[in-house]
Amino acid sequence: MKITFIQTGGTIDKDYPKTKLGYAFEITAPAAHRILENANPSFKPEVITAFRKDSTEITLVDRRKLLKICKDTKNNKIIITHGTDTMLLSAKVLSVIKDKTIILTGAMRPEKFSNSDAPFNLGMAVGGVKVLPYGVYIAMHGQIIPWDLCWRNASGQFVSKV
Amino acid sequence: MKITFIQTGGTIDKDYPKTKLGYAFEITAPAAHRILENANPSFKPEVITAFRKDSTEITLVDRRKLLKICKDTKNNKIIITHGTDTMLLSAKVLSVIKDKTIILTGAMRPEKFSNSDAPFNLGMAVGGVKVLPYGVYIAMHGQIIPWDLCWRNASGQFVSKV
Amino acid sequence: MKITFIQTGGTIDKDYPKTKLGYAFEITAPAAHRILENANPSFKPEVITAFRKDSTEITLVDRRKLLKICKDTKNNKIIITHGTDTMLLSAKVLSVIKDKTIILTGAMRPEKFSNSDAPFNLGMAVGGVKVLPYGVYIAMHGQIIPWDLCWRNASGQFVSKV
Amino acid sequence: MKITFIQTGGTIDKDYPKTKLGYAFEITAPAAHRILENANPSFKPEVITAFRKDSTEITLVDRRKLLKICKDTKNNKIIITHGTDTMLLSAKVLSVIKDKTIILTGAMRPEKFSNSDAPFNLGMAVGGVKVLPYGVYIAMHGQIIPWDLCWRNASGQFVSKV
Repeated sequence: MKITFIQTGGTIDKDYPKTKLGYAFEITAPAAHRILENANPSFKPEVITAFRKDSTEITLVDRRKLLKICKDTKNNKIIITHGTDTMLLSAKVLSVIKDKTIILTGAMRPEKFSNSDAPFNLGMAVGGVKVLPYGVYIAMHGQIIPWDLCWRNASGQFVSKV
Repeated sequence: MKITFIQTGGTIDKDYPKTKLGYAFEITAPAAHRILENANPSFKPEVITAFRKDSTEITLVDRRKLLKICKDTKNNKIIITHGTDTMLLSAKVLSVIKDKTIILTGAMRPEKFSNSDAPFNLGMAVGGVKVLPYGVYIAMHGQIIPWDLCWRNASGQFVSKV
Repeated sequence: MKITFIQTGGTIDKDYPKTKLGYAFEITAPAAHRILENANPSFKPEVITAFRKDSTEITLVDRRKLLKICKDTKNNKIIITHGTDTMLLSAKVLSVIKDKTIILTGAMRPEKFSNSDAPFNLGMAVGGVKVLPYGVYIAMHGQIIPWDLCWRNASGQFVSKV
Repeated sequence: MKITFIQTGGTIDKDYPKTKLGYAFEITAPAAHRILENANPSFKPEVITAFRKDSTEITLVDRRKLLKICKDTKNNKIIITHGTDTMLLSAKVLSVIKDKTIILTGAMRPEKFSNSDAPFNLGMAVGGVKVLPYGVYIAMHGQIIPWDLCWRNASGQFVSKV
């Protein structure tokens, strides 16, 4: 099994900065690396960095870049780690790809936190990417949902419309 | 989506004992509870304890009890946390069930460890249980494999025969 | 031994918010509670919240409040968790107290991070507060230093002038 | 400030083994390394391994070796990480040294556990070693106690006789 993991930034990759004052975070190396190291998969994962941004700062140019990376990779199983605020927006842009299974996932608390949901969420994406039909999905809050059937409820959970 | 989680013990649930001398562990409350609390799923998980044993100590009587619990539950999506040493043996016993998707998972390091693979592995099982056909599977080392196509390689990883 | 722990906020107490967009943190319950629970001390700690602020936002009014709390407590062993950016400023204000041992400590990474320095730093303060003469000290980066002999070097470490 | 850290094994250094069946642990690299890396001390710590044993397995020969290492080091500030079961026994053997401050510490749960007391305890030892008079001390459960005034109560805590 081959899976391409693509980092775009977001909460999952946020770390506490050494240099800045105040409340700010900064986005560093892909959390996917550390999670997969603990999981010790029998396959060799490929991890690519598209960009490292809070998802409220992702531009249309960024999304086109992400789309190009997804189109260009030979693997048809892709997992994207992404900030939650605009995850559905990126999913929509990627939905023009019809011959790959693409799962977007992320975290509500950075992977560096001891109570992070990141390892579970990335696990979900890996568990689903092999068997799900081609299409673009969101893997958050214990469910993998086709992007166009997915919305966020009042408490911020990604849930199914149906 | 309804999923029944069944605890049987194993490394995933091992904790450091307060009372014993020496090297021993003890098996306590199901790790699935803590992992799911962090994941904050949009569904309400049911967590059942079948027994709490290192998997080298599971008897045929225990496995029959586990089989009965799986048969009796109304859910047809079941995730079992289990020690790795006899996971395949329990899978074989459960394989008489033909109308449910049953995934056995566990961990190489206890969930209490900061570098545990437990949250990732349970995530994989949750990601796969909804979409996989009826049958019994092993979710470990980054893959979900039908039990009868699964074996452990020299470094202890569960890998596919095909 | 009686020790009074006082929370003022700072990195040590920062958590990832559920509600806000973007990079921001928020300050929640005192990390000292969780650290001491793990440490299981044989004494019963008293934990007081003075305020919950990033230390760049602490005002002179806040510092006078903190001074009053320190003066009013009957214990003469006080440990204050505090943001690092203005830790020395608060220490100076507190230095009018001549009959108590007061140690300010904090963290470079929130206690919620799996690689936080918070438990070690709070441990240092507890280890020193019993034996150090009356005065105000900074406990960071592996050393406990009298506040008026302490400064931060170019890499942000609190070090001794002598 | 110069501190010599000496590893002897014990719970603090226990890791989950990859190779053994069942409940056993194994003792690996000194936890002090990882804890100090997170603490980022301004001094350069020296970490020596005397032996790696559960403290119930430490022999008189081992203790004489530990005594020799403590005598031979030029530093007069020594912190020893040690299993709790025979910590007081080793302290007694070391008490012939009259010109150094020696603190024995350890943990009730391995440093690899996310809820370990190890970082706090090592922090306590570092906080105390600089200021305590020459002698041998136990740093556990929130207190640093001269070894000959220290005993374990019914719940396993190290407490002061006085």
